Amino acid sequence: MSASIRILGIDPGLNATGWGVIDQTGSRLSLVEYGVVKAPPKAPMAERLTVIYNAIEVLVETYQPHEAAVEDQFVHASAVSALKLGQARAAAMLAPARAGLVVGEYAPKLVKKSVVGTGSAEKAQVAAMIAILLPGSKADADAADALAVAVCHAHHRTAMKGLAS
Amino acid sequence: MSASIRILGIDPGLNATGWGVIDQTGSRLSLVEYGVVKAPPKAPMAERLTVIYNAIEVLVETYQPHEAAVEDQFVHASAVSALKLGQARAAAMLAPARAGLVVGEYAPKLVKKSVVGTGSAEKAQVAAMIAILLPGSKADADAADALAVAVCHAHHRTAMKGLAS
Repeated sequence: MSASIRILGIDPGLNATGWGVIDQTGSRLSLVEYGVVKAPPKAPMAERLTVIYNAIEVLVETYQPHEAAVEDQFVHASAVSALKLGQARAAAMLAPARAGLVVGEYAPKLVKKSVVGTGSAEKAQVAAMIAILLPGSKADADAADALAVAVCHAHHRTAMKGLAS
Repeated sequence: MSASIRILGIDPGLNATGWGVIDQTGSRLSLVEYGVVKAPPKAPMAERLTVIYNAIEVLVETYQPHEAAVEDQFVHASAVSALKLGQARAAAMLAPARAGLVVGEYAPKLVKKSVVGTGSAEKAQVAAMIAILLPGSKADADAADALAVAVCHAHHRTAMKGLAS
């Protein structure tokens, strides 16, 4: 019997950070929980980042994942958006990293390909496929993307030497 | 006799994060310490961000600043640079924010104007003026910029209602 590995996937955003927890037992994946962290949009930046960090820290403590994964985000056309996204991403990555977890990074195209089979899938297709791959999931948008990055990590971690359970 | 306020200024960067600590007693400013945190350039992003966060956390514990300040960074032409900068900036802001400190944010032009008198000053001018304003400072580049943002915060905090000591 294979040991179970728990993975926390995160889809960071300054206003909404999606998260999803899955268990991987051998090649079998199962849904644990998912949700969205909303930071107060009009608060000072330091406060918004603290809300994201603290929320992810609570998730790490609550669900005790073994590993975490985030999208290595597609860089938006706007440098202003990229700066904001970078801040949210760091806040989300730091909580699992400081707890000693590996934090895998995956290109958005690879995440879509892992879940839907094509790197050019739409957001709605990702959510539909997540509902099939992880029975019980009604996640959409940010939470579905977070579950997708967790699934992508599950597929890739078993392909990596030394990381396979 | 005015109470003394200690300010931690930070100039975040993924490779080099400058920092500087000053004391403000009434209108008098004095240098406490300054330096540069270097994160391992080839390490995974989560690890680089953790190095920055942990280093700033140690500075907060060591120097016990009352307030902190960072540049509200000029957005680079490249979205890729902006994403990196955003991540470094969040890692640097989160340590003082989570310790309960106010983290002031100042536009680079305002920082330069506060220190040199013009928003279009060169980096070398900022360092030269910091050496005059804060006797004992031999800080250059990133550390001088960090001291400059601390000086800018000192000037502006006393102008803000409710924040004046």
